[in-house]
Amino acid sequence: MATFTPPLREMKFVFRELFNGDDLQNLKGYGDFSADVVDAVLEEAGKLSTEVLFPLNLSGDEEGCTFENGVVRTPKGFKEAYQQFAAGGWCGIACDPEYGGQGLPKAINMMIEELICSSNMAFGMYPGLTHGAYNALELYGTDEQKATYLPKFVDGSWSGTMCLTEPHCGTDLGLIRTKADPQPDGSYKITGTKIFISAGEHDLTQNICHLVLAKLPEAPAGVKGISLFIVPKFMPKPDGGVGQRNSLACGSLEHKMGIKANATCVMNFDNAIGWLVGEKHKGMRAMFAMMNTARLGVGVQGLGLAEVAYQSGLAYAKDRIQGRALKGAQHPDKAADPIIVHPDVRKNLLTAKSLTEGVRALVMWVALELDRSAKAEAAEERQAADDLVQLLTPVVKSFGTDVGFEVANIGVQIYGGHGFIREHGMEQFVRDARITQLYEGTNGIQALDLVGRKMGAHYGRYLRAFFHPVQEFIEQNASDPAMEEYTLALAKAFGRLQQAVGATAQKGMGNPNEAGAAAMDLLNLFGYVALGYLWARMAKLALTKQNDDPTGFYKSKVKTANFYMAKMLPKTGALLSSILAGGNSIMDMEEELFGTAVAA
Amino acid sequence: MATFTPPLREMKFVFRELFNGDDLQNLKGYGDFSADVVDAVLEEAGKLSTEVLFPLNLSGDEEGCTFENGVVRTPKGFKEAYQQFAAGGWCGIACDPEYGGQGLPKAINMMIEELICSSNMAFGMYPGLTHGAYNALELYGTDEQKATYLPKFVDGSWSGTMCLTEPHCGTDLGLIRTKADPQPDGSYKITGTKIFISAGEHDLTQNICHLVLAKLPEAPAGVKGISLFIVPKFMPKPDGGVGQRNSLACGSLEHKMGIKANATCVMNFDNAIGWLVGEKHKGMRAMFAMMNTARLGVGVQGLGLAEVAYQSGLAYAKDRIQGRALKGAQHPDKAADPIIVHPDVRKNLLTAKSLTEGVRALVMWVALELDRSAKAEAAEERQAADDLVQLLTPVVKSFGTDVGFEVANIGVQIYGGHGFIREHGMEQFVRDARITQLYEGTNGIQALDLVGRKMGAHYGRYLRAFFHPVQEFIEQNASDPAMEEYTLALAKAFGRLQQAVGATAQKGMGNPNEAGAAAMDLLNLFGYVALGYLWARMAKLALTKQNDDPTGFYKSKVKTANFYMAKMLPKTGALLSSILAGGNSIMDMEEELFGTAVAA
Repeated sequence: MATFTPPLREMKFVFRELFNGDDLQNLKGYGDFSADVVDAVLEEAGKLSTEVLFPLNLSGDEEGCTFENGVVRTPKGFKEAYQQFAAGGWCGIACDPEYGGQGLPKAINMMIEELICSSNMAFGMYPGLTHGAYNALELYGTDEQKATYLPKFVDGSWSGTMCLTEPHCGTDLGLIRTKADPQPDGSYKITGTKIFISAGEHDLTQNICHLVLAKLPEAPAGVKGISLFIVPKFMPKPDGGVGQRNSLACGSLEHKMGIKANATCVMNFDNAIGWLVGEKHKGMRAMFAMMNTARLGVGVQGLGLAEVAYQSGLAYAKDRIQGRALKGAQHPDKAADPIIVHPDVRKNLLTAKSLTEGVRALVMWVALELDRSAKAEAAEERQAADDLVQLLTPVVKSFGTDVGFEVANIGVQIYGGHGFIREHGMEQFVRDARITQLYEGTNGIQALDLVGRKMGAHYGRYLRAFFHPVQEFIEQNASDPAMEEYTLALAKAFGRLQQAVGATAQKGMGNPNEAGAAAMDLLNLFGYVALGYLWARMAKLALTKQNDDPTGFYKSKVKTANFYMAKMLPKTGALLSSILAGGNSIMDMEEELFGTAVAA
Repeated sequence: MATFTPPLREMKFVFRELFNGDDLQNLKGYGDFSADVVDAVLEEAGKLSTEVLFPLNLSGDEEGCTFENGVVRTPKGFKEAYQQFAAGGWCGIACDPEYGGQGLPKAINMMIEELICSSNMAFGMYPGLTHGAYNALELYGTDEQKATYLPKFVDGSWSGTMCLTEPHCGTDLGLIRTKADPQPDGSYKITGTKIFISAGEHDLTQNICHLVLAKLPEAPAGVKGISLFIVPKFMPKPDGGVGQRNSLACGSLEHKMGIKANATCVMNFDNAIGWLVGEKHKGMRAMFAMMNTARLGVGVQGLGLAEVAYQSGLAYAKDRIQGRALKGAQHPDKAADPIIVHPDVRKNLLTAKSLTEGVRALVMWVALELDRSAKAEAAEERQAADDLVQLLTPVVKSFGTDVGFEVANIGVQIYGGHGFIREHGMEQFVRDARITQLYEGTNGIQALDLVGRKMGAHYGRYLRAFFHPVQEFIEQNASDPAMEEYTLALAKAFGRLQQAVGATAQKGMGNPNEAGAAAMDLLNLFGYVALGYLWARMAKLALTKQNDDPTGFYKSKVKTANFYMAKMLPKTGALLSSILAGGNSIMDMEEELFGTAVAA
């Protein structure tokens, strides 16, 4: 059976030891978050995840959500779990104290999100979506809107959604057809159909407030003519209660591959009353404010699933006896050896471990810079932090979710045929992970964002936010014999990245298709090099501590770093070769030739 | 919606043009299979797959099998489809005419199997398992057993299963506990529990005949003490009918990630009457006879799923409009361009196309050698053919099913969020493909088979069956300027394979863990080089024909080959690097250190 223990030791290692995360206390508004407080919050979040959320993960997947007479019911136990979640203050933990939140730094909140995703990703999406709506309203809402909605989001009594996609458009939001008709009282009547609305309708909260992209009558064509509206299921009353039902309804639930305990709804708005959020025609800006944080959050979903799949695969590999070690029986007293003796099983486990822990370090790096980008005193520090966040957000989303899917599949593979059986819980991680590569912009879109928007921005300024620390680390450690194994491997991989970036920038200038063709390889190259840099840093730290550590924690870190350098970083060579081969072979194929094979 | 057209043109290209498959007619017993006959058979199989099987694929997955009071029911329509299938003679098409079969060569049968797997893999497993039982009995059964069972398997009125796995053992069959108690009349009473029995119980046939691995009382320990028994659900009567019910029953159905329309059963044998097949304690030999063909068949399942996923992804990429081409609108008359204009979508499609068509060529190569290994006149020719089959069977199984899973996922990715929705049928291919990497020996076991059993066998004789033709092709085409692009890329990749094989053989001699650690990388290296060789051959053929071809078929082949050389073959570099890095970083990690991270 799948198993989960909160990886608090791991989290504290990256947060505290690798990145000095306790320094967050020095930022404005974060003074309360001492090491003790952080530890206590993580401890509680760990308990919540193992005692309340994880026990509902498999049953929630089996039962799914139901839709009857317009009413959506979440699986058994979800309502009670949500009440406990809200009562514990978890809905507002990272929200502004002005609205009742606890003002937790984002970097610490990311660790909580990881725990929630490991234990029950489908559950986590309900409060997760609300938090996205909170972010958009906090940034772009009027004072009245903030006062009306934010305290309700924070105490969990109301929830929120993002309504972007329509049947004919997802990536290309310029095509949306939902209309907003201005009313004399300043409100709007919203009409249209939205699909794939996560948590669009459910039985967890008193009210559900939709952030809806729609077009005003006089709107310019394309993405520059989209506005954002808040459209609640029930009208807010001045006393904080809810009034009449708005004219919007869930039309149906989607039947999906995974995240079955989360209600994915078709939402029909039929002259539903809504109010403009932010400026007319500037809805995409607000949407992107939500989306950038959401993209990091999706990367964290991949991380959370990778962690629980690794832990579960490891437990099985130690427990399942089958065959003998190639060099002779390791446990002659047993009928067979545990499968962890077999090199290929170990390779799978170490692939999972090194990728999962590497992505955790990457997420933490970006999350801390996200806090600094918002709270640092000096404008340059804020900008430098934001540069890194801008650059690495698509990498966290795409690489992190690809790792989530890969490690979930490794978990299944270690279980063998048993991994395919639902009651063991391993195949659910694969199905749940699959959506993370698709939503909030497919991973292909993330690659285009990296190469098209981020790489060239401000003459490569974002790039330097990543290249400088890597270069500096290599230079500072090049002469240390204990670090040679890491710096040499990292320098080689980093050189490949620099070469690939240079080649793509040059070719892409004359021909954008060259950049597009290289985009996904380049994003993955970024991912492997970023993890290589972080593993080299983790190795450096662990090397100094491993001799005084009876738990073996640091020794494990050193050996995992060794594996990453030897077995994972070589992938950068193939990625560079593919990039240098250019885009001709991709673009040169006439559209008809993809399919003649079938037709002829 | 997922879509499927039988890729007959593709099949004929590899069968006839690439490998001169019509020469099979010259082999003993295959004289009837002229080109016309082959074409007619493929045409009919194509119709069967699109008209009868494909329409039941999605509904079969949705409904699944049911189990009530010991009775298993297949999904709606399966019974009628099976009757049609059996009435058409498809159950026995590749069986010996002596038993009523049509004696089709295995190479042609593989194409039919591919069509069945593309259209409805879960359905195909029912007759597929029967065919496995047919093979074992044909090889090892007594004359009486053959006369009793084989005609029934051929006409489809009875079906067969393979009962190997038990709850505590799958890979390591030496641990099985099922017992066979000899009876005075020469029969045996079989007692034990078998799990993961595909088609173990269902409503398609009059009788279900289980081939069961069990241990005799005096059996030696381990795999050398396993015997094979035939244990029918109903006792065969001399008149060809069925008599009393045997004491065996389905205990439950497994709830699985995919292949839901195939009944995966727990089978309980409680003093069930059975008869020995082949010699006592030699059951593994018979099982391997079934399994080697079955492994090729599982590779073909991967191929079939890849084909239908590619076709479906392609149709969507041409139909779905979203965004504009990077160089400017391609279809200014439409609201957006079809997504096939985007480089990353094209890269996904070409990855799918080049891998799928490459695996088809690989399967065909091995299948033709399989026929030659059985039917060629000269003993050396039979042996040479068998050498290649031995070597490449684990590659077809592992690489073919990894390609199936990868391409199924590409199909989902092209669909974006819609790929995650069940009604579109794309995510089913992913779930169905996932089992192929696990059963008939996990892919990790295939890699061990390649490196541990096949690579060193007869001083590398199997290896030479692959190395010689590749080397010869490179030499023969090295001086042809039109072929330079292909021979150079192939020679580079082939050199890497030779180096990797040499290094692994040398290191593995002193330390088997080194071979085990390299095994999966090496198998994948074999796979990419084999496809590189086959794509170079296909390019050579297509280059000579493309100018006289109005359909664009050969032009498409040339361009797909170009893509494979530029974008896929570079992966061989990373695989070699990983192999050369050795197994230290995999074996050096103490078992406790995998998990301290969690415990500490």
